[in-house]
This record gives sequence, C-alpha cells and structure tokens, in this order.
Amino acid sequence: VSSRLPHVGTTIFTVMSRMATEAGAINLSQGFPDFNAEPELFDRVSFWMREGYNQYPPMAGVAVLREAIAAKVADLYGTTYDPDSEVTVVAGATQGLFTAVAALVHPGDEVIVFEPVYDSYAPAIELQGGRVVRLALHAPDYRPDWAAVAAAITPRTRMIMINSPHNPTGSVWSAEDMTRLAELVRGTDIVIVSDEVYEHVVFDGRRHESCARHPALAERSVIVSGFGKTYHITGWKIGYVVAPAALMAEFRKVHQFNVFTVITPVQYALADYMADASRHLGLAAFYQAKRDRFRAALADSRFELLPCAGTYFQLARYRAIRDVPDTVFAEWLTREVKVAVIPVSAFSAGATDEGVVRLCFAKHDDTLDAACERLVAL
Amino acid sequence: VSSRLPHVGTTIFTVMSRMATEAGAINLSQGFPDFNAEPELFDRVSFWMREGYNQYPPMAGVAVLREAIAAKVADLYGTTYDPDSEVTVVAGATQGLFTAVAALVHPGDEVIVFEPVYDSYAPAIELQGGRVVRLALHAPDYRPDWAAVAAAITPRTRMIMINSPHNPTGSVWSAEDMTRLAELVRGTDIVIVSDEVYEHVVFDGRRHESCARHPALAERSVIVSGFGKTYHITGWKIGYVVAPAALMAEFRKVHQFNVFTVITPVQYALADYMADASRHLGLAAFYQAKRDRFRAALADSRFELLPCAGTYFQLARYRAIRDVPDTVFAEWLTREVKVAVIPVSAFSAGATDEGVVRLCFAKHDDTLDAACERLVAL
Ligand SMILES: CSCCC(=O)C(=O)O
Ligand SMILES: CSCCC(=O)C(=O)O
Repeated sequence: VSSRLPHVGTTIFTVMSRMATEAGAINLSQGFPDFNAEPELFDRVSFWMREGYNQYPPMAGVAVLREAIAAKVADLYGTTYDPDSEVTVVAGATQGLFTAVAALVHPGDEVIVFEPVYDSYAPAIELQGGRVVRLALHAPDYRPDWAAVAAAITPRTRMIMINSPHNPTGSVWSAEDMTRLAELVRGTDIVIVSDEVYEHVVFDGRRHESCARHPALAERSVIVSGFGKTYHITGWKIGYVVAPAALMAEFRKVHQFNVFTVITPVQYALADYMADASRHLGLAAFYQAKRDRFRAALADSRFELLPCAGTYFQLARYRAIRDVPDTVFAEWLTREVKVAVIPVSAFSAGATDEGVVRLCFAKHDDTLDAACERLVAL
Repeated sequence: VSSRLPHVGTTIFTVMSRMATEAGAINLSQGFPDFNAEPELFDRVSFWMREGYNQYPPMAGVAVLREAIAAKVADLYGTTYDPDSEVTVVAGATQGLFTAVAALVHPGDEVIVFEPVYDSYAPAIELQGGRVVRLALHAPDYRPDWAAVAAAITPRTRMIMINSPHNPTGSVWSAEDMTRLAELVRGTDIVIVSDEVYEHVVFDGRRHESCARHPALAERSVIVSGFGKTYHITGWKIGYVVAPAALMAEFRKVHQFNVFTVITPVQYALADYMADASRHLGLAAFYQAKRDRFRAALADSRFELLPCAGTYFQLARYRAIRDVPDTVFAEWLTREVKVAVIPVSAFSAGATDEGVVRLCFAKHDDTLDAACERLVAL
C-alpha cells in the first residue's frame, strides 16, 4: 500500500497512555481529567435521548447549541457570529482543524505553524499537498519571534495556525502579540486558524486573547474550540467552529462530506448546560488551584519548572536528574518511576530536544500528590 | 476565498428536510426513522457516563466494541478481523468513507463509482486530487454492467467504491456480482471501499453479500458500516471500519488526525447493546413489513414502483402524474402535496433524470398511511 503519510506513526498520546497502562504508572501524559463531569450534564443527555432526539440534526448543528455558542462568544469576546451561517458544531476540535485545513489549503500553499506544535496540524496540511513552514518557539517562555514570522511570510502563505493558550507549553499570547499578528497579515489573503480549546484555562488574571476580540483578525479567522477541556468530557469529541460566512461556507462544504454532523442528544444537552456561564467562567480558578498545588509540591524536586500561564500542562526541565534525550527520560520516568509524561520533542518535526517534559495536572489532588511524591524523590 | 470544492452546494438531504419543515410536509426525504430507539440503549449510555467513562478512549475505539464488531462480522460473513489492528470505530460511516479516500487516493488516481451515487463520495475523491470515474446504473433494476466496469479499469484505477444494499435505488448485489468484481480486480492493486450501512436491511430471503464473505475481495477491501440505520440512531453518527491490517494502518494515520476517536460512553453502550444479536438480525423483517405495507398502499396510485430488494428506500416513477424534471416534481410534491421526497438525479453529477423519486419508508405505519393517502389521490 502506497502511503499518503509515510512519516506518520501513532500519536505520542496513544503511545504514552498505553505505556502508562502497561507500567501501572500514574498517567500525567495524555491531557485528560481523572475526575468525572457533573451528573447534571448526563441528566440532560439522558433526557434528550428519551425524548427521541436521536436522528440527524441539521448539518451545522442544532440551532439552540449554535445560538448558545454565538451568545457566549459575543459576551466574552465582542464579535457577533450569525448562528445560521457562521457557527458549526464539529466532532471535536481536531476535526475542526483538519476540516479547516482541507477546505482552505490548496496543493502548494504554505502554512505557518509554531513549534512545539500539536501533532495533528502538520499531517493535516501535508495531506492536502500544503507545505508546512515551522517557526520554533524556545524554552523557557516560548514567545513568538515576530521578526521571524514576518520573514516567513511569502506570496504562497495561505494560512497561519495559532494556539493560545498553547499546548504543550502553557504559554499565553498577549494583546500585543495579537496586534503584531494583525499587522503582518493586513492586506494579504492569509487565513488564521486559531485553536482556542484552552480558552477558559488562563491564570493569574490574564485574559484570553481570542481572535474574536480583535476585529482585524476575526474577519479572517477560523476559530476552533471544544467542550472537552471545558466540561471535563475529553472523550465526547464535540467542539465548534466560528468564522465569517465566506470562510464558513467553504468549511461546511468539506464538513458535510467528512462527518456531516455530530451526535444529536449531546448537542441539546450541551446547549442546556452552557446556559450556566459559571461552568466555564469558574474553570480558570479551578485549574489555577491545581497548578499552584502541583508547582508547590515540585518546588523541592530537582525538576526546573517553566512558567505556566494557561492550559492544564506544566513543563519541566529534567537534565539535572538524568542527562538523556527527552524521549528516553519520558520512557524511564513512566516505566521505572511510574509517572507517565510527554517528551516535548514529540511536538517538533526536527525533534528539537531542549530537555523538557510535559506533565498534565488535570487530576484529582490525590493523584497529583502521589505523583509529586515520586518526582520529588528523584 | 478560493474554493477547494467550487461545484459543491448544500447536500440534497439538508435542502429537502428544510423544505419539508417549511412546508409542513410529511418528510419521506432524508433517510431517518420517525420512531425512537429502545430505552435499553439509552440506559447503557447513562450508565457509562455516570461510571465516569467520559475521557479519551483509545484512538481506534474501545476494545470491547472492537471485539463485538469483529465477532459479529466473523459470525455473519466468515472473515475474522483482528480487533487491535483491523477494526476502527468511526464518527459515522460518512467519516469512514471520507477517511478511507483521504488515506488511500493519491492525486491523479482514478476512483470508479456507480451512479446514482451517495453524494459524499465524489467530493471526497476530488478533494484528494483523485479523478471520479462514473458508471451509470439505470432504472428499473440498476444492475451493474460488468463489461463497462472492465472497460473503465485503467492502470491509474486505485479504488472502486461500492454500496450494496444501495442507496438510493434499493438494489442488492448478488454473489455473482461479487464474483465478477473479484475477477476484475484480481492481480491489480485496486482497493475496494464497500459501504455496507444497510447490511441488515435485505428482503425476501436474500443474503447480504458483504465483501467479508468473499476472501478474494476481503483481502483488498475497506468495509464501512454504521450503527445509525441498524439501531434507529442516525443522529448518533457512529460506525465502524474493518480492513486488513496494511490498509487499516493507512486508514488510522488519517483517522487519528481527523477525528482522533468517537464518544466514549456511547461506544461502551453499543458494545453492550450488540450482545443481543436479535437486534440486528430482526431488522430485515421489521423493514420488510413496512416496505410491503407501503407498496400495497401505493399500488392504487399513479406512481410506478420500482423493485426494492433492500434499504429503507422505495423508488417510484412519477411521469404519469406530471411530466417535469425530478427536482421540479420533488419540490412540487413537498410544497403542494405535503409529502417530501428526494429527486434521484441529485445522486448524479450528470444529473441524469429518469423521472424517479426516492421515498423513505423508515416511518411509523401511521406516517406511511397518511403519506400514501396523499400520494394515491394524485
Ligand atoms: C487526542 S489525545 C491528546 C490529548 C491532548 O490534547 C494532549 O494530551 O495534548
Ligand atoms: C447525512 S443525511 C443523509 C441520510 C441518508 O443517508 C439518506 O437520506 O440517503
């Protein structure tokens, strides 16, 4: 079989979660909570199933959910999207990103990404015959280098994919970053694809700089977000995309022939559940407490903790413990120390190794405490 | 915005269901039941949600569901697929088809499809830079012309997409058809993508000729099926793909970066629910009774009913009533007679119009009777 993606293996998240299970390790690798979502959400799903809402919804998603999404985005970020033509419910943010790329990147187009980069972006681009242009972000703070971005833009640049709060580094872009980006794309036909799945997980009083806050970006942005991180349902694979009508029309052309739509009763349930805004607005404080507990417990370890401004991931330099490549360290930590983590080089094609691993702190306090006990002993 | 799919509009199913709602028509257009699935299935979903099975499952799907699928396929069709490397749960059959095409069709490859063809196939092929080679099937029985298939195969033929039982025509391929297909592809590297979502809806004692019954086909086939049609949950968008390991490895490379995986608690619930085989084995008799009731009621009408060997769709010639294009007839029937149907030309790029519309009989008997009353009056 001749492969369309010859260089692609199994995603690092599958590899490390499987290794964690085999080793009986505490799993701080793949990013998901080890606690359950609220029963109120399950009640709503049960309700809508029993009421008979189990057949095809509209392709773009059920109206009440699209309306709730548009209302939330307008409330928080100030841009109003038309629920009918500018909001689409998707089968998880990954599908939103994949579909945006498939709908908008033509063979030969260049797409700028920032490394470390979530592992689905580059294969999605390559599958469409696009060229991935990789700009490196570096420890400890992983700031974008705007001069390098300016230099990377060519007449073939079709898209820039951004992600703030950023997985895996926990960095968060500032209003100044957004202004710089807007300046660079002004007058071009470059589309921004903005992965904002951690939009509600920003710490220390920062605000999330959605592209929907910045009209000069919003007019050319496909914004992708999800419910998995926000409501502790990473396995439900449901998210949404908002974009101006002309971009959304192209998005939907592909979406309707990719997944067509998303599980009906869950859409209705999420519309009900979103009505209480405290559920997403309270998330930052919830995870900030976990971050603080986790960092405090590791303060006595030989790990060097990097800044964590958002997401539920903490980066740590480990070379004081063992001077080995990060993949070797991650495997050793998983199998011998019984704490599974992600090597950050897995997010780089060049496999840039700065001696950093990623730890997920979306866990019960007990889980975090148990992991820290092992990590502090090293 | 420069479009990747300039010729694509909104799918006919969305158009007609929307028109049905506007007109207050009985909706026999888009293919979905107007009755609910069984409460036992909802109970299982509720159970797994409450138990906390709401985070990422394995990328290929939860093990118990992959095992249940492999067991069913082995039982019914005799081919044994390895649940670990040859079975993947997908976000609906459409996503399975889209992903198979994306994973296996290279730019410039030719893909043979049979028209009338489900409307997602051609855009999926075109998006990958493949060339769609269309072979026409004709009323009344829509048999494949094997000499024409032989003539259409070239060294560039990469894939043949088949669908039996066939949407929209209700035709069902015979064992002889499968043998002919196997002869034509022997010694080539052509992959068969087989859409078998109506596998359990075959009538009059016929058997479903899955590619998994025919070793010479199974070895080169990606078989796509779903739970929507089988368990009356078309809106849940969950299905599965089985294929030999080498093909499945390529499929999963794309799948993991497209949707990654599918809603966890529903996967566990379906594994439980599948355990009672009478649920899928009883489906043929259930829909055969509806087909017979529907055909009997329409026997006195001026529609000419075409054969219906499988699926929950009945085709009908209408030119004795009005001699107009099928799109005009379908719109008139929806708006004036208040019965929504699908014009079969919507399944052809050439918009071949043989004066035939499709009616969905997956409805309450009362719904069918009410629709027939209107149709017989014409
Ligand atoms: C799709 S599994 C990856 C989960 C995740 O977002 C992460 O761990 O970074
Ligand atoms: C995805 S909506 C189409 C439903 C269906 O399979 C049909 O009506 O043919």
